Amino acid sequence: MIPTITAFESSPDRGRGLARDMPVRWALEEVGQPYNVRLVSFAEMKQPAHRALQPFGQIPTYEEGDLALFESGAIILHIAERHGGLLPAEPDGRMRAIMWMFAAKSTVEPVIVEGEVAKLLEGDKSWTKERLPMIEGRIRDRLRQLSVRLGDTDWLDGEFSAGDLLMVNVLRRPAGLAMVEEFPNLAAYVARGEARPAFKRAFDAQLAVFTGTAPATERA
Amino acid sequence: MIPTITAFESSPDRGRGLARDMPVRWALEEVGQPYNVRLVSFAEMKQPAHRALQPFGQIPTYEEGDLALFESGAIILHIAERHGGLLPAEPDGRMRAIMWMFAAKSTVEPVIVEGEVAKLLEGDKSWTKERLPMIEGRIRDRLRQLSVRLGDTDWLDGEFSAGDLLMVNVLRRPAGLAMVEEFPNLAAYVARGEARPAFKRAFDAQLAVFTGTAPATERA
Repeated sequence: MIPTITAFESSPDRGRGLARDMPVRWALEEVGQPYNVRLVSFAEMKQPAHRALQPFGQIPTYEEGDLALFESGAIILHIAERHGGLLPAEPDGRMRAIMWMFAAKSTVEPVIVEGEVAKLLEGDKSWTKERLPMIEGRIRDRLRQLSVRLGDTDWLDGEFSAGDLLMVNVLRRPAGLAMVEEFPNLAAYVARGEARPAFKRAFDAQLAVFTGTAPATERA
Repeated sequence: MIPTITAFESSPDRGRGLARDMPVRWALEEVGQPYNVRLVSFAEMKQPAHRALQPFGQIPTYEEGDLALFESGAIILHIAERHGGLLPAEPDGRMRAIMWMFAAKSTVEPVIVEGEVAKLLEGDKSWTKERLPMIEGRIRDRLRQLSVRLGDTDWLDGEFSAGDLLMVNVLRRPAGLAMVEEFPNLAAYVARGEARPAFKRAFDAQLAVFTGTAPATERA
């Protein structure tokens, strides 16, 4: 069965792969699972039909037969459990990979998103200029801790996993990426993720929606 | 094998059950798994020995034989997979419960924590008085969406699950709890969680650390 995900009809990131459909596409590409895309407008995302699928009015969603999911972390875990290649088979290693998925989404991403909120939602406020260095300090502390843990290894725990996929995705967010350059091993880690053929296919697919060159199946 | 978790030697919440060991204790109590607690000071949390277990210098950690985990979401998922009672056996229902775990940690908690950061880390700043209503508006929007989805059901998706455990835990955070009262079904949901015997046992255990009445095994 071919799953269907949702993505922005008109992505605010202009196809830079920052919307949350990107890691889901990447995971699907890693495991070789074809998928359909249904594009939704900002108006549609507020409607009851979409809220029934995604109570917070966001993308992506994932539909596969009777199963409907939201939350990119959960969708990627589902994909990783159905296919090989994104989680170690050995139970302890599998759990550590899932641990890194939670770390990406609940420990690293919120600090980085705070930097985006300050610029996007409070960019015109008098206090933002003075607040930004504080926020950047928090992002820098978090990235330093991650950099120390990564050390000179290629991936966070052995082979590439769904944990790396989500972490690279989070580090690519603008407020993080600017600072990632201060940590050469993290910059190399992000580049290593972006160099994966599955990343490139996913990136091209989401960019094609923005440039209007996506296949008809992606144009809702 | 009895797992060992870490918790604050001196919790900044003064035993109100807001530290991240609380949901892990709650999950362990729900499944009837005894556990040991190793208390760590703020100084110890910065040391290499703790950073080897928890690269971000936080609590809780979870050690069980060769397995060492951090991230409360991952620890609770591990507990839920080892024991019955926190995840449906049916695959789609299991995945939806995990989806709510991610929703609690990456969609609801960060918005609430932003309110805490504003008060705790920026409470003395000139802008905080003007920023707080904006942040509260974001928390209110998120809680309204959750309230609509919960509707008149007891739990987010069928029986009580690890998703509810984490969501109730997140809603108990001070910046959320103040606003939860505006949504009677969410207030009842939190009360329903707090009324569970396992919640009470976990709450009492973490409070006993603060009051100095915890059993010797919990005093490192």
